[in-house]
Amino acid sequence: MLILSRRDVVELLTLETCIDAVERAFGLHAQQRTFGPRVLGLPTEDGGFHIKIAGLRGERNYFAAKTNGNFPNNPPRFGLPTIQGTVVLADATNGTPLAVMDSGSITMLRTAAATAVAAKYLARSDSHTATVVGCGVQGEIQLAAIKTVLPLRRVLMIDTDHARAEDAASRATTRLGLRAEAAKDLRAALRESDVCVTCTPSRRAYVMAGDIPPGTFIGAVGADSEGKQE
Amino acid sequence: MLILSRRDVVELLTLETCIDAVERAFGLHAQQRTFGPRVLGLPTEDGGFHIKIAGLRGERNYFAAKTNGNFPNNPPRFGLPTIQGTVVLADATNGTPLAVMDSGSITMLRTAAATAVAAKYLARSDSHTATVVGCGVQGEIQLAAIKTVLPLRRVLMIDTDHARAEDAASRATTRLGLRAEAAKDLRAALRESDVCVTCTPSRRAYVMAGDIPPGTFIGAVGADSEGKQE
Repeated sequence: MLILSRRDVVELLTLETCIDAVERAFGLHAQQRTFGPRVLGLPTEDGGFHIKIAGLRGERNYFAAKTNGNFPNNPPRFGLPTIQGTVVLADATNGTPLAVMDSGSITMLRTAAATAVAAKYLARSDSHTATVVGCGVQGEIQLAAIKTVLPLRRVLMIDTDHARAEDAASRATTRLGLRAEAAKDLRAALRESDVCVTCTPSRRAYVMAGDIPPGTFIGAVGADSEGKQE
Repeated sequence: MLILSRRDVVELLTLETCIDAVERAFGLHAQQRTFGPRVLGLPTEDGGFHIKIAGLRGERNYFAAKTNGNFPNNPPRFGLPTIQGTVVLADATNGTPLAVMDSGSITMLRTAAATAVAAKYLARSDSHTATVVGCGVQGEIQLAAIKTVLPLRRVLMIDTDHARAEDAASRATTRLGLRAEAAKDLRAALRESDVCVTCTPSRRAYVMAGDIPPGTFIGAVGADSEGKQE
């Protein structure tokens, strides 16, 4: 059985490979060649655990179970990530475990890849300008993933912490070769953008229908549980 | 994160340690110091996957998730065990994964330990004679576990494959120091027994109320899913 740490996953799984894999898995799901997904949760005092299981049928049949701890107070309280856990991969024909992998890194890449697959099919193919709201680790990888499927040239980075937006813009220039700037006016940014990615823990809506030009692609990634909205 | 193979578990986890741990966990459950258990299943063509999750509060809080593949045709078809999988242990205060362990070996020991804890409190403390129906690996370990909590001297081993019962009786003599014999007449065996353990995949009942002397302890282990009975 293969053991893959966070570092192993980051070294082995490129965004391009992950985007291809997610696109193929979505295709198999549309052809009803998947089983599941099913989910199970167990709340605790300060957070909880979530299990997500699913499988797919192909040349070989696979089953995966993701077991994540979700403890929002981890970063300030313990200096640990909010999400920690494992993905167990098994042969779905006989149940033999094949690999145990760090789940945080896979979740980060898989989330970005899902947005990229959506953008590939739903965004205008000549999309040049993007707005990213929420400049955490996930926001930056979302941008990198979208750039692999669209001819982006310019990005406007927005964050409630403007210094963080400036740092992210600087990295978008050096790492992705984009004309990048930190912005403060979301409505102005949206008017100039073909693509908008939101990646925040917001609990109130802030991207309004009236602010979005027709044909804009929106990847709303942050609202991943009840009570959150962007 | 610790990785424990089947061999590691068998070497590290003695029956005595496991029985103590199961007894303490049952005690914590009675004191409502556990969370869960919850279960999730996903059937496939030839079997399926089962997730069982639970946690307990003590000096340190723990969460465990067992992910098992259950493929009954594995032994004849692939020469593989029916049950294969992993147990992920995590710190339940922050979600940090602590260990990934082979689940088959832990399940085998934990199942035997649960019967031993039940026998410790529910069987007559002077129980000398046991009947074991079903002489597979699990039947033999059930006997070994019960012997750690009761003053057993004699065992009657019964199996639809009588040669297997004879082999198991021989091992019970050499390994456990019991006066052991393979038997064919279940009703006669029950009349002489203080303890009866059934550990078969039977789908019809075969231990009948009228055959059991008052005060007999019965550990019925085999009927672990709908449609099975002993």
